[in-house]
Amino acid sequence: MDDIKTLAKSIEPKLIAYRRDFHKYPEVGWTEFRTSSKIAKILMDLGYEVKLGRKILKEEAIMGLPPQQEIRNEIERAVKEGASPKIIEMMENLPGVVGILHTDKPGPTVAFRFDMDALSITEAQDDEHRPSRESFASMHDGIMHACGHDGHTAVGLGLAEMLMKVKDKLSGTIKLIFQPSEEGVRGARAMVEAGVVDDVDYFFAFHIGFGATDSVSLVAKTTGFLATSKIDIDYIGQTAHAGACPQEGKNALLAAASAALNLHAIAPHSDGITRINVGVLTAGTSANIIPGSAHMKIETRGETTALNDYMQEKAKSILEACAKMYGLGCHITDAGAAPSAKGDEELAQIVKQVGENLGLSRIENESYFGASDDATYFMEKVQSQGGKALYFQVKTPIAANHHNSRFDFDESCLVIALQICTCLALNLL
Amino acid sequence: MDDIKTLAKSIEPKLIAYRRDFHKYPEVGWTEFRTSSKIAKILMDLGYEVKLGRKILKEEAIMGLPPQQEIRNEIERAVKEGASPKIIEMMENLPGVVGILHTDKPGPTVAFRFDMDALSITEAQDDEHRPSRESFASMHDGIMHACGHDGHTAVGLGLAEMLMKVKDKLSGTIKLIFQPSEEGVRGARAMVEAGVVDDVDYFFAFHIGFGATDSVSLVAKTTGFLATSKIDIDYIGQTAHAGACPQEGKNALLAAASAALNLHAIAPHSDGITRINVGVLTAGTSANIIPGSAHMKIETRGETTALNDYMQEKAKSILEACAKMYGLGCHITDAGAAPSAKGDEELAQIVKQVGENLGLSRIENESYFGASDDATYFMEKVQSQGGKALYFQVKTPIAANHHNSRFDFDESCLVIALQICTCLALNLL
Amino acid sequence: MDDIKTLAKSIEPKLIAYRRDFHKYPEVGWTEFRTSSKIAKILMDLGYEVKLGRKILKEEAIMGLPPQQEIRNEIERAVKEGASPKIIEMMENLPGVVGILHTDKPGPTVAFRFDMDALSITEAQDDEHRPSRESFASMHDGIMHACGHDGHTAVGLGLAEMLMKVKDKLSGTIKLIFQPSEEGVRGARAMVEAGVVDDVDYFFAFHIGFGATDSVSLVAKTTGFLATSKIDIDYIGQTAHAGACPQEGKNALLAAASAALNLHAIAPHSDGITRINVGVLTAGTSANIIPGSAHMKIETRGETTALNDYMQEKAKSILEACAKMYGLGCHITDAGAAPSAKGDEELAQIVKQVGENLGLSRIENESYFGASDDATYFMEKVQSQGGKALYFQVKTPIAANHHNSRFDFDESCLVIALQICTCLALNLL
Amino acid sequence: MDDIKTLAKSIEPKLIAYRRDFHKYPEVGWTEFRTSSKIAKILMDLGYEVKLGRKILKEEAIMGLPPQQEIRNEIERAVKEGASPKIIEMMENLPGVVGILHTDKPGPTVAFRFDMDALSITEAQDDEHRPSRESFASMHDGIMHACGHDGHTAVGLGLAEMLMKVKDKLSGTIKLIFQPSEEGVRGARAMVEAGVVDDVDYFFAFHIGFGATDSVSLVAKTTGFLATSKIDIDYIGQTAHAGACPQEGKNALLAAASAALNLHAIAPHSDGITRINVGVLTAGTSANIIPGSAHMKIETRGETTALNDYMQEKAKSILEACAKMYGLGCHITDAGAAPSAKGDEELAQIVKQVGENLGLSRIENESYFGASDDATYFMEKVQSQGGKALYFQVKTPIAANHHNSRFDFDESCLVIALQICTCLALNLL
Repeated sequence: MDDIKTLAKSIEPKLIAYRRDFHKYPEVGWTEFRTSSKIAKILMDLGYEVKLGRKILKEEAIMGLPPQQEIRNEIERAVKEGASPKIIEMMENLPGVVGILHTDKPGPTVAFRFDMDALSITEAQDDEHRPSRESFASMHDGIMHACGHDGHTAVGLGLAEMLMKVKDKLSGTIKLIFQPSEEGVRGARAMVEAGVVDDVDYFFAFHIGFGATDSVSLVAKTTGFLATSKIDIDYIGQTAHAGACPQEGKNALLAAASAALNLHAIAPHSDGITRINVGVLTAGTSANIIPGSAHMKIETRGETTALNDYMQEKAKSILEACAKMYGLGCHITDAGAAPSAKGDEELAQIVKQVGENLGLSRIENESYFGASDDATYFMEKVQSQGGKALYFQVKTPIAANHHNSRFDFDESCLVIALQICTCLALNLL
Repeated sequence: MDDIKTLAKSIEPKLIAYRRDFHKYPEVGWTEFRTSSKIAKILMDLGYEVKLGRKILKEEAIMGLPPQQEIRNEIERAVKEGASPKIIEMMENLPGVVGILHTDKPGPTVAFRFDMDALSITEAQDDEHRPSRESFASMHDGIMHACGHDGHTAVGLGLAEMLMKVKDKLSGTIKLIFQPSEEGVRGARAMVEAGVVDDVDYFFAFHIGFGATDSVSLVAKTTGFLATSKIDIDYIGQTAHAGACPQEGKNALLAAASAALNLHAIAPHSDGITRINVGVLTAGTSANIIPGSAHMKIETRGETTALNDYMQEKAKSILEACAKMYGLGCHITDAGAAPSAKGDEELAQIVKQVGENLGLSRIENESYFGASDDATYFMEKVQSQGGKALYFQVKTPIAANHHNSRFDFDESCLVIALQICTCLALNLL
Repeated sequence: MDDIKTLAKSIEPKLIAYRRDFHKYPEVGWTEFRTSSKIAKILMDLGYEVKLGRKILKEEAIMGLPPQQEIRNEIERAVKEGASPKIIEMMENLPGVVGILHTDKPGPTVAFRFDMDALSITEAQDDEHRPSRESFASMHDGIMHACGHDGHTAVGLGLAEMLMKVKDKLSGTIKLIFQPSEEGVRGARAMVEAGVVDDVDYFFAFHIGFGATDSVSLVAKTTGFLATSKIDIDYIGQTAHAGACPQEGKNALLAAASAALNLHAIAPHSDGITRINVGVLTAGTSANIIPGSAHMKIETRGETTALNDYMQEKAKSILEACAKMYGLGCHITDAGAAPSAKGDEELAQIVKQVGENLGLSRIENESYFGASDDATYFMEKVQSQGGKALYFQVKTPIAANHHNSRFDFDESCLVIALQICTCLALNLL
Repeated sequence: MDDIKTLAKSIEPKLIAYRRDFHKYPEVGWTEFRTSSKIAKILMDLGYEVKLGRKILKEEAIMGLPPQQEIRNEIERAVKEGASPKIIEMMENLPGVVGILHTDKPGPTVAFRFDMDALSITEAQDDEHRPSRESFASMHDGIMHACGHDGHTAVGLGLAEMLMKVKDKLSGTIKLIFQPSEEGVRGARAMVEAGVVDDVDYFFAFHIGFGATDSVSLVAKTTGFLATSKIDIDYIGQTAHAGACPQEGKNALLAAASAALNLHAIAPHSDGITRINVGVLTAGTSANIIPGSAHMKIETRGETTALNDYMQEKAKSILEACAKMYGLGCHITDAGAAPSAKGDEELAQIVKQVGENLGLSRIENESYFGASDDATYFMEKVQSQGGKALYFQVKTPIAANHHNSRFDFDESCLVIALQICTCLALNLL
């Protein structure tokens, strides 16, 4: 145990350097090409088997992909910023990396998930914000690592190095999964459907941040994952001059307005919490033209996957009926999704034990999340195969809330997360 | 001409007696069994060929028929009030009479339409109201002749007698059409589709009332008939306890509410006036139950039949889409309809000439109606065959507005209407 | 204990006779004049102090009172059915009885609440339904004791007799509260605001029924009382002819439709369950008239009183805004209300102990209600004064669900309920 | 007459040069600084009294003004493109010019209105489009003279020159009004309220274009101006996390949706045509956030000013009520307006006579417009003072419809318009 702590500590400066590099070059979902290239290079250099592209992402299961032109621009940008053109080519326009460590000894397979995308937020520029003061603030206008995924990725790379160092103590297989596009819950499904965790016996994901008084606090188990669906809808109607020939229009705005009201009127469910939100509605071009198109961004949630399915099914019926009401075309896109999931108590006990062994002063049994993370796709799949899965938290002092332009975290959490992950691998393999 | 005037004058007491009898025993649409029986008897006695039942009413084209039990009760009531059981049997549960006078000389066919139904209005009971004062007010609670159809029917019977008296002056054929259920525009379509005017060359309908300063005024032509459709709709959903299991409901009330708003938002049309009204909405049974059923009564109108069709088609799309939105069953019933129609100027000139010959002091060329009468079904059919049709008015001093509980009219209009109709027949045959 | 059991058993025939008498003459909320008169007479004869009328019902706090003419008719009917005119007069047109037993020894005050109203349901008439078969089915068309309140009242009268018999074993004071109008949660508030429980230290209410496999089962504590408000609203607009002058209307139907949709779109609350239902909407009179009035019956609920207040406040804002939208008058009536409440564990332990002492074979700690009973008004008041309150259940085999036209219950529950209540009084006094 | 024709013909090349210059440097409403500067310079050089800025535009009556920063940028741009800094300064940030010709002989005042703004349309770039082929297409991305106002302005300048040449034939006063911001009906009101036509006896406006078979056609009178109001509204609510704390939001999107439906349900009016359109609705920022703001662009129209007032008043009530419904702030802005107006037949006869004198082969008495132009503000004001006003049309062959990116017109209309205007001035003065 002491060896692990010492070994991890020796890697800490590298962890921080990784984190700050990713923080400086943030990439939003499905454009993490520089990040993925760096990760793949490091894993290859360490001796990991590295998988990329369609081998780890099933194209039909991808949600919320930007237009191809944007993807091409982002790849070009990433190469300019140091991504390896050769590795990029292997990615087949899809970011994401899976590194595999074969111990060549029989044993179970343990997987860790690290998400690596940033947010469409403009980072604070003044000296009160440490990343600006210490010159690792975002170089990309309007994009920022404001949820700590830069830290997750850094821990993943540190873990790759640690495990290679203790490889002879391990049996079985390790999978390090660097998932693209967690924000908007868009990337996990494609990895799961590509079979990335088909052989996994134990799965872990974790999140840093959330605030903690003055030192890091370990939460063994996360509860309260709401299942969620993000739905984009376009109504295609017909414009017309509103004064001269209103009857020639097919009013997409009124269909969307009617849908919005009726969506919010979906009955609640006696089995538990449900939510719906029409978060965005845009329709029409000018006061004197009957609006020929409308766009909405909608979100459903449910305390269980079944409850979210209930909401989603009702929502789609309403959306389609409102198109019929005004004679419109209607394109519904699944823009994101995550099931609900529950962590396994057996693994929670192990995490707790590891925390105690590491001498952590603050350990909580569980914490209610009340939001969504598509790590639940992996959890659900592994559990459905008879495996175990857990999502723990490394609560960390933060400078401002998640998704805020002043978000920053106490980097001492990185080495602690690394120690925990390493111990979990050693414990189970 | 003077002979006609004198002859008609001699019948006047009978006209008034008829009118008061019908006024005393008013019958709403599709229940005019006593009225029809009386008419049929008189026509038979005069020597007319009389047609009843399915020969003059096509069952599939009937709109807004009450439940059969109610029909049976009304027939029983009519018999008690003097209707002939034998004639009633010939009616096959459908009121309405067509009397035909064959002159046995070649010539065109001229038809007159008389409507005979009353309204669901409770008649004023005090002595200021002449029918009460003179003891011919309604014997039927909640039913009243408040639109003058009692007068129309009386004129029709007078005309039957007059024409038989001048039969040798006539050639061709006369058809006297006693139409049921004009209120709510429900009865004409079934007569037209049964072929009642298939052989008609000249068609007349008229209306008394509308107010006139101190004596009767003849309006040669009526314009501004709005085409209209009456639609009844039932939504069938599923009740559920609103607190305990709201998700089990299929909310018919919300579908109806959503339909009401969207129906009223149908775009106006650059070709002319359109109207829509959700006149009645009833849904649900108690505060704590999700409403499992809803009922609406809807009316569309258009300056032309095409405009009304535009409104009706849009309305039905919306109604059906709102059912889909909430997973409901949906029964749409055509509860009434009338096309738009225009009178023939040629006949208007004849009416005007007749009025002048009769020495009427007030004659107007035309008057804008701005409402609906399903006599337009007959007009449209006759004109489509190459015939001519006209709707004229005998404007009459009235005690209160049409459809008011104090409505009454100056009975001197009856003999004038009779003279005009007789002259028209003589003129054209 | 054995004495109590024996004594109660000896009263059982009377309990059943009472229940069947009340069952035969059911009275809906605020019209329980025959029932109240019978109760008052029996309590007076037993030597109780009896309070009636405004002494026990604060007029301003009454909800959902029928029109005075209806009240007068019901009083007349009750007198014909045996109510005492003298007692009726003391009631001041308000049913409800409080009987007080003074032991004249110092001690706490214990209250029991019995509700006594029936439902607007037509009772099954055939021989499969025991009340019909055994000739105690409802004599009142369309009214039925379908929720067991006839049984509650019978137990209350039995308890009055029992307690008088064991009076010398008691100290302190007993209050037997016979509450009118529990259905629709309309009556309790007026009793509480009249001060009926101002001096009460221990308060009990109970409910029989709910189904039980083959014998009675005692539930010591009821949880899950949802706070609720019933709101009636009338919109007053302006009728107009929908074809001829639509601009003259003030459309009450569209305001109600818009309100219905927006009411159902009130955001859920993260603190717990909320519900809303527009259970009834009626508007308009005929297809061709713009609807000049609309009526809705609405219900809100919340897991806590605060959550129901949240819903109610939002609902009233929406209702008022929709009136403004169409230039309407708007009358909102509080038609019923009940707060949430929690029973005291201390009393639940006593009830459980009493059940065990009585040798009951089935005893449950608690049961989730998920609905509303305005006994919670009494509970909240007593607890706010530092007293204790509890709502227990005597689960009973039933012939059909509550509020069903075939509802009937196994009358053996009556004597058990009586034994429990008696023991509770003895235990606490 | 022949002299006028010859004189005008000699100016034609200048007219075309003016038109093409303005076409090349199009400026949208309230940014016509280069155009206004050129006009003012020419008028000054010709000897006109020139009025600018607040003298001709009442600031409080301006509608739809862009933000001041944008105004400043546009002024800078105009100066770079040749506007006179000195003249610009006199404009006080407000484009628009009034040129006055004093004949110094007593007589009435005749005014001509020329609008000069372009549209937010990107002009076609290919050689099939003459302005591109002949190198006078728009130099301003996304802005284009696609409604012929460049031609109107050119005619205005030609008229200034003509009238100065025939000054000794004139008595009274001439006012040449170069109005900013006709598109969106935003500019005329401010000129009228500044008193620009307070002393005017005869007012003319005209429009070129509309298509004509092969040569120009004169329409003496334009009918069918719909009164109109453009309303911008912002709802200010409160964002909240849609999953975690929905109750904290004030949902601006739902208020806007509800308003949109109810606005479209405003009852039609029996006095004539009414229209409403919610042309734009934008609300919210992301799927998981309750939308805290919403914006709508709305247009009402009426066959008369009173009918538009009816629509506008109802619309504002609905908009305000929907804000109340969701507890929102609400800012309503009048973004544009024009009354209805009718041309004077007396002036129409004069225009017709002028056309005949000029030997025009095609002259129409009148043409129905069915749309809006805020020249009606001037017409209404002049008529209210006892003056006469007229809006005529010079129908012109066009390459594509108005407001189309390929719009262009047969420039031979310019000299004809100039001849007509000159003759009108000579005729009336």
